Amino acid sequence: MSTVRGYFHPKTATGSSSLIPAPPWQYSGDLLTVEYRTDPERVRELLPEPLELAEEDPGAVALIWADWQSCSASQEELLDPVRAQYKEAFVVVRCSYKGRTYSRCVYIWVDKDFAIARGLHQGYPKKLGSIHQTRPHPYGPAPRVAAGARFGATLAAADRRLAEATFTLREESDTNGFVNGHPMIHHRWLPSIEKGKGLALDELIETGGASFEAGPAWAADAELTLFDSPTEELSRLEIREPIGAYFRQVGVVWDGGRLLESGTSGAE
Amino acid sequence: MSTVRGYFHPKTATGSSSLIPAPPWQYSGDLLTVEYRTDPERVRELLPEPLELAEEDPGAVALIWADWQSCSASQEELLDPVRAQYKEAFVVVRCSYKGRTYSRCVYIWVDKDFAIARGLHQGYPKKLGSIHQTRPHPYGPAPRVAAGARFGATLAAADRRLAEATFTLREESDTNGFVNGHPMIHHRWLPSIEKGKGLALDELIETGGASFEAGPAWAADAELTLFDSPTEELSRLEIREPIGAYFRQVGVVWDGGRLLESGTSGAE
Amino acid sequence: MSTVRGYFHPKTATGSSSLIPAPPWQYSGDLLTVEYRTDPERVRELLPEPLELAEEDPGAVALIWADWQSCSASQEELLDPVRAQYKEAFVVVRCSYKGRTYSRCVYIWVDKDFAIARGLHQGYPKKLGSIHQTRPHPYGPAPRVAAGARFGATLAAADRRLAEATFTLREESDTNGFVNGHPMIHHRWLPSIEKGKGLALDELIETGGASFEAGPAWAADAELTLFDSPTEELSRLEIREPIGAYFRQVGVVWDGGRLLESGTSGAE
Amino acid sequence: MSTVRGYFHPKTATGSSSLIPAPPWQYSGDLLTVEYRTDPERVRELLPEPLELAEEDPGAVALIWADWQSCSASQEELLDPVRAQYKEAFVVVRCSYKGRTYSRCVYIWVDKDFAIARGLHQGYPKKLGSIHQTRPHPYGPAPRVAAGARFGATLAAADRRLAEATFTLREESDTNGFVNGHPMIHHRWLPSIEKGKGLALDELIETGGASFEAGPAWAADAELTLFDSPTEELSRLEIREPIGAYFRQVGVVWDGGRLLESGTSGAE
Repeated sequence: MSTVRGYFHPKTATGSSSLIPAPPWQYSGDLLTVEYRTDPERVRELLPEPLELAEEDPGAVALIWADWQSCSASQEELLDPVRAQYKEAFVVVRCSYKGRTYSRCVYIWVDKDFAIARGLHQGYPKKLGSIHQTRPHPYGPAPRVAAGARFGATLAAADRRLAEATFTLREESDTNGFVNGHPMIHHRWLPSIEKGKGLALDELIETGGASFEAGPAWAADAELTLFDSPTEELSRLEIREPIGAYFRQVGVVWDGGRLLESGTSGAE
Repeated sequence: MSTVRGYFHPKTATGSSSLIPAPPWQYSGDLLTVEYRTDPERVRELLPEPLELAEEDPGAVALIWADWQSCSASQEELLDPVRAQYKEAFVVVRCSYKGRTYSRCVYIWVDKDFAIARGLHQGYPKKLGSIHQTRPHPYGPAPRVAAGARFGATLAAADRRLAEATFTLREESDTNGFVNGHPMIHHRWLPSIEKGKGLALDELIETGGASFEAGPAWAADAELTLFDSPTEELSRLEIREPIGAYFRQVGVVWDGGRLLESGTSGAE
Repeated sequence: MSTVRGYFHPKTATGSSSLIPAPPWQYSGDLLTVEYRTDPERVRELLPEPLELAEEDPGAVALIWADWQSCSASQEELLDPVRAQYKEAFVVVRCSYKGRTYSRCVYIWVDKDFAIARGLHQGYPKKLGSIHQTRPHPYGPAPRVAAGARFGATLAAADRRLAEATFTLREESDTNGFVNGHPMIHHRWLPSIEKGKGLALDELIETGGASFEAGPAWAADAELTLFDSPTEELSRLEIREPIGAYFRQVGVVWDGGRLLESGTSGAE
Repeated sequence: MSTVRGYFHPKTATGSSSLIPAPPWQYSGDLLTVEYRTDPERVRELLPEPLELAEEDPGAVALIWADWQSCSASQEELLDPVRAQYKEAFVVVRCSYKGRTYSRCVYIWVDKDFAIARGLHQGYPKKLGSIHQTRPHPYGPAPRVAAGARFGATLAAADRRLAEATFTLREESDTNGFVNGHPMIHHRWLPSIEKGKGLALDELIETGGASFEAGPAWAADAELTLFDSPTEELSRLEIREPIGAYFRQVGVVWDGGRLLESGTSGAE
């Protein structure tokens, strides 16, 4: 009879097999964000009790591409970069909970297993996808971070393209958008192992960065296209009206969240 | 305020984005199994309370490669096979719980996200890996299912090879091995979102196939090699003595499990 | 000053790094074929001098999915199956050369580098793609090789789905189709390293299997859909009329071809 | 009877399916270089006639990781970055031809098909691999381009790790190394389609960048490890003595090369 260790599975005697280490988790990355308005009913239908539509601009949606290098406090993953680098594309809406406005990730695709595991912990509904975004570079044909610079971003899953966007940087901006600017409110759900017994885990949690640094945000003009897929509902968040688009380079630390309530989502 | 649906995340109004559908889940697959004895202490250290070493042959380990096609009750995934096909390699030991012998998967690698999600539900500690195994075929150089046929199997993760094996079929066998022959006893663990608060989910569950059909098992002679990796502890289950090796084609249905106890693992 | 060896690059002192070994090459695989008629002008425009449209049924096209295990004469690759297994989808038309009817592959996608290298040698215009097809299996939900069995097949490249098909087996068939039934006539082209100097290699070659064995062909009913892509012209071979569809398991040996003529294609 | 177009296969009526467009090809990228001395005989055995060992420091080897974004003159690939981004690791030695010193790539792995195709054209002996290298970033835990910054780089192929290195930047440097600093001298080889007839293409070519811009080179301290593999001979270039290590960001244009001689390599 033993004690097993490890922040995540597989737990072992040493803990060193854990798919993810304990927080804090550190991130360096580039973000490409496009914001638009959809039918607010399409947002509402993704918000389980007790979440409600945000009062202001309730149909606002952000689709964000991120190119990350991440690591634990030891930073050792950065020297074996297959364990540090990943890309993601995710969709954020806002909502209201007890009178406060939150951001909420409703769809997200990543390309590594450690990113899936972190998402399980943080309540991000992650799937695997194939994500690409143009990287800025100081030499050659790739764009500088400067007015007129052009970036592309694409998302696919299960061998189908789900979204693609192009961005043309316009000018430095006071903001990197407003949809993904609040604390995140997420559910952590897992069905009971017994059929018909509902959820074994049903938590409403709040989470956000423990620290943040960033370069200037850049406003951009963007073109976004969403594609249908039999296994995805991203295109159900149809584009009614563009809001804005942004590029920003950031450094983030994540170090845990807060349990808000448990067993109340009514999710089926 | 809405109800969201879906067996797994992301939950939506329709439920059709769920990474995995509700059980029953159906599988067709080929299994290559190699069994060996390791130091029983290496098994014991992977068994959290209240699990104990199996009384008989406590150091027995099975390393199993599986080449699967899986689907929900609708079987629609089989017609879009990127959603049905996956491969896995997994390590099973036995243990004792309340006087009964169980099988327990201590390490497992798969190559699709839907397989990771099922593992979360079933308590398999899944990571992504790159898994390959020779397939039988009735024509050309690939092996028939017959005496003398040779199969290879390999496992890699994070760009490192973790295990490789070759199998030579010898004769039909009454058994497909004994290590993976019991009901599975697994933990379902998720850390609390709040730091220092331990586990939010800590369940001991029992699970197994709801139905099973199979062709004859074949006994094989096998060579197995395990490799070290900074992120894995598979090679810590060092090979002391071979037991046996097997090939078998199976059809399986999984349809839920049973909660044994909760909050008792003492895992850190 | 040394002699370097190896059937293909990289050539070394031992020859053992070669991306592909010398022929003969042996293959075991499952083929799913769908044949249809397109506008013969769409076929003609893919046939450089001196090739001409086939006299009979000149607009016939075959789109074929293949799930292969391949190896050299030593068969050692089969025991390290990451080096043996690959999938491909390819498009075949017929043409006439010196009064004889040939098959010609006009588009092909594979998922391994050794398959790309073989294609360079054999004149197949290979790109990387993501290819999936349902496999027959004797147990569980996957199809048996029997009337009513359903198979799916999909093709994607550069994160876009290019084609998908479903097949329902109907009955055993005397034929596995007629479009891919002739010797292959291919070009082997490589531009001059010097700009504006045309082609350094411009060969018209004939190739085909050195030996062949197979199970019964099965006729099938099929649904095929082609999708547009900015980098592909598969959908330009638009579907005017279905011809037939087939499933067959085969064993093939390839062992070289024959040079027909050189420097005459007029390709730009 | 038609004319087909396209710089590379597949050639079509429009030319738009070509796996690679016509040069010039533009590149933005980050290079991590480690130089060491091996047994000069190991270099000599990789140099076919009429190439000879370089007179000075003939056992010098450079192993280079590169993280590229590349495009044609239209630069359209940069906006669909799955078509622009790739990574590579390659091994360069020097040699002498007609009294002049050249660089020569003896092994190279890339992760995209368009990069394989360019290599065929340029005489790089490309295989597919899995390549990772730490990227510099201005925020968060990833390294800045500055003294003390640490980078990792890894290479794997066929599910086996072949090489890994860590770099610690020391100071700006007048040089980015000397092994990869000459015009490239490469062979373009393709076997005859007819067995026993030798090579159909056997060209010795010279190639190099048409233009080049770069940031400062940084000297680094590096640790390099090479691993054995049954299909690779990288580790045969054993590390006898380190020379130096470097980081540099570059922009490059490639626009064709020059044929030196044909049919003289004596390669088997």
